[in-house]
Amino acid sequence: MTEPSGPIQGNARLEAFSDGVFAIAITLLVLELKVPELGERSGDALRHALLAQWPAYLGFLTSFLTILIIWVNHHALFRQLRGHTRPLLFANGLLLLVVTLIPFPTSLVSSYILTPGAGTAALVYCTLQLGLALAFNLIWRTAYQGNLLLADAHSGYAQIRRGYRLGPVLYGLAVLVALPFPLLGVGICAGLAVFFAALSYER
Amino acid sequence: MTEPSGPIQGNARLEAFSDGVFAIAITLLVLELKVPELGERSGDALRHALLAQWPAYLGFLTSFLTILIIWVNHHALFRQLRGHTRPLLFANGLLLLVVTLIPFPTSLVSSYILTPGAGTAALVYCTLQLGLALAFNLIWRTAYQGNLLLADAHSGYAQIRRGYRLGPVLYGLAVLVALPFPLLGVGICAGLAVFFAALSYER
Amino acid sequence: MTEPSGPIQGNARLEAFSDGVFAIAITLLVLELKVPELGERSGDALRHALLAQWPAYLGFLTSFLTILIIWVNHHALFRQLRGHTRPLLFANGLLLLVVTLIPFPTSLVSSYILTPGAGTAALVYCTLQLGLALAFNLIWRTAYQGNLLLADAHSGYAQIRRGYRLGPVLYGLAVLVALPFPLLGVGICAGLAVFFAALSYER
Amino acid sequence: MTEPSGPIQGNARLEAFSDGVFAIAITLLVLELKVPELGERSGDALRHALLAQWPAYLGFLTSFLTILIIWVNHHALFRQLRGHTRPLLFANGLLLLVVTLIPFPTSLVSSYILTPGAGTAALVYCTLQLGLALAFNLIWRTAYQGNLLLADAHSGYAQIRRGYRLGPVLYGLAVLVALPFPLLGVGICAGLAVFFAALSYER
Repeated sequence: MTEPSGPIQGNARLEAFSDGVFAIAITLLVLELKVPELGERSGDALRHALLAQWPAYLGFLTSFLTILIIWVNHHALFRQLRGHTRPLLFANGLLLLVVTLIPFPTSLVSSYILTPGAGTAALVYCTLQLGLALAFNLIWRTAYQGNLLLADAHSGYAQIRRGYRLGPVLYGLAVLVALPFPLLGVGICAGLAVFFAALSYER
Repeated sequence: MTEPSGPIQGNARLEAFSDGVFAIAITLLVLELKVPELGERSGDALRHALLAQWPAYLGFLTSFLTILIIWVNHHALFRQLRGHTRPLLFANGLLLLVVTLIPFPTSLVSSYILTPGAGTAALVYCTLQLGLALAFNLIWRTAYQGNLLLADAHSGYAQIRRGYRLGPVLYGLAVLVALPFPLLGVGICAGLAVFFAALSYER
Repeated sequence: MTEPSGPIQGNARLEAFSDGVFAIAITLLVLELKVPELGERSGDALRHALLAQWPAYLGFLTSFLTILIIWVNHHALFRQLRGHTRPLLFANGLLLLVVTLIPFPTSLVSSYILTPGAGTAALVYCTLQLGLALAFNLIWRTAYQGNLLLADAHSGYAQIRRGYRLGPVLYGLAVLVALPFPLLGVGICAGLAVFFAALSYER
Repeated sequence: MTEPSGPIQGNARLEAFSDGVFAIAITLLVLELKVPELGERSGDALRHALLAQWPAYLGFLTSFLTILIIWVNHHALFRQLRGHTRPLLFANGLLLLVVTLIPFPTSLVSSYILTPGAGTAALVYCTLQLGLALAFNLIWRTAYQGNLLLADAHSGYAQIRRGYRLGPVLYGLAVLVALPFPLLGVGICAGLAVFFAALSYER
């Protein structure tokens, strides 16, 4: 046999690859912050141009916080696993897919939140956030079904599962309101990022 | 002697460097997704502009899946090696060369698949996919000839070799049809990505 | 319990994720160096265009040195810690937030230091440098309060704390002078980068 | 003492950070390959536009090979060290500085090698290659003077030093001829990359 039928022991490369993707996605966000092109006509104009970019700064902060929390939770979850299976590699790959996409809707919202296109932009943004929550649930479910949890991790399973279940419902709500009320939809996502960060901080 | 004549034990840095390249290449793909520049004229226009970019989304998904499968297979292959030789470092370097190139033909196909340039774009794309398959075969062959496989990995060699041999033939077919039938060529590559992912998932 | 109440042993993933962010931020700086677009009209024109970009080269060097020193100090600090707590993950996240932002003010200063917008650009740049110093202090304080220092690290605490306290004061000074005297503000930051590098080199 | 006065044992983070920078610099090279903007006027035009970019492909290949060889040699050198000192951290930082710069002169040469600005572009490119060779020598010298070499590495020191000394002389020659004979200068660098790769492959 070239591949043992049970789970593969050790997650070092899985974690290293994931950390690489998280680190790059979180660092690429800065490319969305554009230096205004004013040339010699700057002075007060530069200050105004920089302040007018506030949606870009807010988008940067929200997306940075989102990826940071995903990394913190990924870190906490994988510390409770004793290895991986092929399905877990692909469930994790789905999470990474959504994570690498984050700069795109962030830029979309930053560019259109103050225009008539706000609803469409907010819908894309909130849908992606929902995708993150669903992908995280899939990883957890795959790990549980693959019998990958360390023995002393099982007792807290019910408790954690409740927390992970909360995410999709709340982000689903943001998706529903995004088209008619774009600022509310994006606001819910930003609020959830802060909320999950606080939750994660307390634990 | 500054360099032992036999293989070097341990692949930690080789794997770390490769994982870095895989992680960056897979994350850079998002830069191909452009935010439409509509300014105040958005609204319905934004939705249409986003939907009209469907070739870019398809290209993103195909290339993401391609790199993810390469990583999964790289991971599986190197778990069966006990070290490396200089030739293996360069065979691995060739694979990384093709991997870092992936965003270029992906962007080429996304931009030209609906234009008269589709044939040229598809030819470049399918040739690169063929290059990936050939580079992976070279790594395997170099590892085998350098006597780098772990003892219990040898029994499954014939079986794996068959799988690796399949790749170049199928991708070669895609190259042949790419110029006259661009969509077919790219479609074969996308289909093979899904096929190898399913194969890899099952194992 | 899914999470031990005391500190988590080991910082391998925390360091790997941080190293990834440092490595990407330091490498992305090169994207600010633009190749002049002269076409066939080059010759002497190219030499002049390249030399006229000197603020961009200076900005690149200063920011590169800044991130390198942060990495060296991060490396030295975490070698004295025996693990991490949730608050430390977020304090470290704040440092990474400021680090990923570095290319933005660097590009801002490079573009505007010779225009009437210099004061605004310098203010943003110096404020970010102050943020770096404050974030580093927060990490240190969080680690100390979380009782994360290795036993033999405690004796040198007072000495190190003095060094870390120096940073915010000096960068605060740069912030104060940045608006009226932009070159002086940026010069103080560049000087501090060289100074802390020399200090760090000597230790 | 917060810092032992002797060398620090272990190079794990130093290697991880360096590998990150190498991996990112080698992957960013692809951003220099531009997709031609032809819109509907493609067809034969796309094939011609792609072929006309041959200097960009050559530049990509040369720079990729250069960074790959640096990584292979970095890998080989650090396997012979038992730790690091502060000066080694900064010598290594200087190498990383030059490595992150590589995409800039590569793009410069690709854009100007067929124009009157070729001499200037070639001079910048060859100077950077000389900088790489010098930085590598500095790392080696710093490691030797800091007494960081493993016991069994010393016997081969004279042999290796000869190889490392060859680099600066040959790249210095390329710098000298770059301004009057741009193609010759760049050709020497490309030839040296292939030569050192072959040398490294043989060992």
